[in-house]
Amino acid sequence: MASQNAPFSSEEYWRRLKVLRTAMMDKNIELLFVEDPSNIAWITGYDGWSFYTHQGAIVFHDRNPAWWGREQDKNGALRTVWMADDDVTYYPDHFVQSTTCHPMEDLADKIREWGYESKSIGLEMENYYFTVNAFLTLQKELPKAKLVDATSLVNWCRAVKSDEEIAFMRKAACISQKIMTGIIERAKPGLRKNELVGEIYRDAMVGVNGAWGDYPAIVPLLPSSRDASAPHLTWDGRELRRGEATFFEISGCYRRYHAPFCRTLFLGNPPQDMQDASKALIDGLEAGLKAAKAGNVAGDVARALKAELKMAGIDREGRVGYPIGLSYPPDWGERTISFREEDETVLEPGMTFHFMPGLWMDDWGLETTETILIKENGPAEALIDFPRKLFVKS
Amino acid sequence: MASQNAPFSSEEYWRRLKVLRTAMMDKNIELLFVEDPSNIAWITGYDGWSFYTHQGAIVFHDRNPAWWGREQDKNGALRTVWMADDDVTYYPDHFVQSTTCHPMEDLADKIREWGYESKSIGLEMENYYFTVNAFLTLQKELPKAKLVDATSLVNWCRAVKSDEEIAFMRKAACISQKIMTGIIERAKPGLRKNELVGEIYRDAMVGVNGAWGDYPAIVPLLPSSRDASAPHLTWDGRELRRGEATFFEISGCYRRYHAPFCRTLFLGNPPQDMQDASKALIDGLEAGLKAAKAGNVAGDVARALKAELKMAGIDREGRVGYPIGLSYPPDWGERTISFREEDETVLEPGMTFHFMPGLWMDDWGLETTETILIKENGPAEALIDFPRKLFVKS
Repeated sequence: MASQNAPFSSEEYWRRLKVLRTAMMDKNIELLFVEDPSNIAWITGYDGWSFYTHQGAIVFHDRNPAWWGREQDKNGALRTVWMADDDVTYYPDHFVQSTTCHPMEDLADKIREWGYESKSIGLEMENYYFTVNAFLTLQKELPKAKLVDATSLVNWCRAVKSDEEIAFMRKAACISQKIMTGIIERAKPGLRKNELVGEIYRDAMVGVNGAWGDYPAIVPLLPSSRDASAPHLTWDGRELRRGEATFFEISGCYRRYHAPFCRTLFLGNPPQDMQDASKALIDGLEAGLKAAKAGNVAGDVARALKAELKMAGIDREGRVGYPIGLSYPPDWGERTISFREEDETVLEPGMTFHFMPGLWMDDWGLETTETILIKENGPAEALIDFPRKLFVKS
Repeated sequence: MASQNAPFSSEEYWRRLKVLRTAMMDKNIELLFVEDPSNIAWITGYDGWSFYTHQGAIVFHDRNPAWWGREQDKNGALRTVWMADDDVTYYPDHFVQSTTCHPMEDLADKIREWGYESKSIGLEMENYYFTVNAFLTLQKELPKAKLVDATSLVNWCRAVKSDEEIAFMRKAACISQKIMTGIIERAKPGLRKNELVGEIYRDAMVGVNGAWGDYPAIVPLLPSSRDASAPHLTWDGRELRRGEATFFEISGCYRRYHAPFCRTLFLGNPPQDMQDASKALIDGLEAGLKAAKAGNVAGDVARALKAELKMAGIDREGRVGYPIGLSYPPDWGERTISFREEDETVLEPGMTFHFMPGLWMDDWGLETTETILIKENGPAEALIDFPRKLFVKS
């Protein structure tokens, strides 16, 4: 019975479990352990800032998933997961930050109790929070198990969003719209970036009617001018300045679901080459949206964008989009599909992407991007309602 | 020559390198690779939200450290690290999210070029961001190397803060004070938690005169009543209510340096047992501060607190503090020393801790905590100037 606090219905969690068990069977995985907090949340409904200690979801073929984590966090699990109280397990606190024992010894104990010590066990071997020593400990404790790399197995199951999830992303999109409206209104020469970030966060957390704001998995990014070539540097106390372009990459977040997008603002009169590039970018974005339809492949979107840009004399290499949805720090991409020419993944209705056709020249960066939803028919829908142009305040 | 953007002086970075090289020598480590963003920042000055892809600092005994990361982030490195441009290396973008190759193949190439393929190489085997596959790739690519667990090696070097670092923490402390002042002023029945978080973030980012606010490594935590037994659940849209206690765990952050602390607020008339517990807690905190002096051990602080609480009939088990300073998500503790009875680490001037003597009963949680600095003589100094009591608004 779903916890009163779990974000989704029982039907939704069962739907997910069915998709996941099929994926496990395809890879002959008898037991799956995931430590990625996004995957734990998607499977169990668990939500808490506890992913700095070992924790995870364990998925079986023939019983409810289990939640396993630090004893201190089991109460958080009891309050948030959809499964029964008996499905919540934990390790005692002396395992935390110990130099003599590892929490995975406790997990291995439980795996033996459950009868899986000789089975094939899926582990996220390329993921942020599942450490090397965690793996080596399980390897040592379960010598008869077959340890299988299940990186991204759950992430791929998350690619097609249910109607319930899309509803959450629409709420996040409303918050994104609010945030960007506030940015464009307030930005002016002399405003310090950290002050603008303060307003961004306030708008983001207050949210909109019917949607309180959750923390985004990535902080606001707002590089100006040549800084745009170093796109992941975060803000400081310097002022916005006349004659500079700043692009804003932000996301509203509703119950861990994101709808990121970018707009660029020029304070003053933008150079002609930037205006021309912006027009080409928007044409490219629209061509990409048309190509982003069910039955096409991810590479088609990249090709459509690239062709449009080439007509304007611009060569754009690299990845131009990634799947978006539920996430926790440090990343909001799902690390599965990419909008790049080599990607042959077939697009399906319900997939959602951050379509990012950015352009970076020596002196400026220009990002006009959208969170998009693949529809049953026709072009993708941009979830955020916001003018698509280079913003100018002169 | 220090980058104009590196937070500290050249002398400070050389000081750190000397401490670190000594620690490496003690463990016979000839080359150190760290992927923990806090450690990368401490060694090189690098600061960016890029720790969701592989990156790191490489430390040698006989030349400058190197920064290595994604090609897209090298510009950010060039702008922020203190070393020379030649010390910034990178891997091409096709390694990112590839299913056929791993960025560590590129790092292994560079390690071979530098002449270290048969040397002893330190790696953070129990740390976020350095994945299992990263380790297995290095192991496969460098079969003649001796791979040594260097988890926490750098973290231990960070335990004693320089005067330059303490100055940053004092700025963070001023921001913490401002945040909590705003919380106590604004909190009232009917105020939704997400709205209060919006104000917290605005205060945090605006900072104070002379200190713009940076993002904290952990989001604000503000559980109420029985939720206090699930301390890592984050906020939602529910209102603060009369008759409830809420504790607020927040931190100002200045250029990645933190000064977290907690205060508890009761809306209405707090029960007698909570008032008594608060008095005992504050007496315990003060006893702990006296015990937190250079030459004592970490366990002495826990013992002093525990003895004071025992006199009030309260048994407090477990860890009651951890080192604090520079950090990135998902954690702000340094994962080295603990204020718990078994910890024999000798306290030294310049160490900084989040001293957390919290108490949790069935129906309420009470946290009155401090960021403290171990001094040359006498008791520790609480860095944040804020009344130490249970706050009541009736």
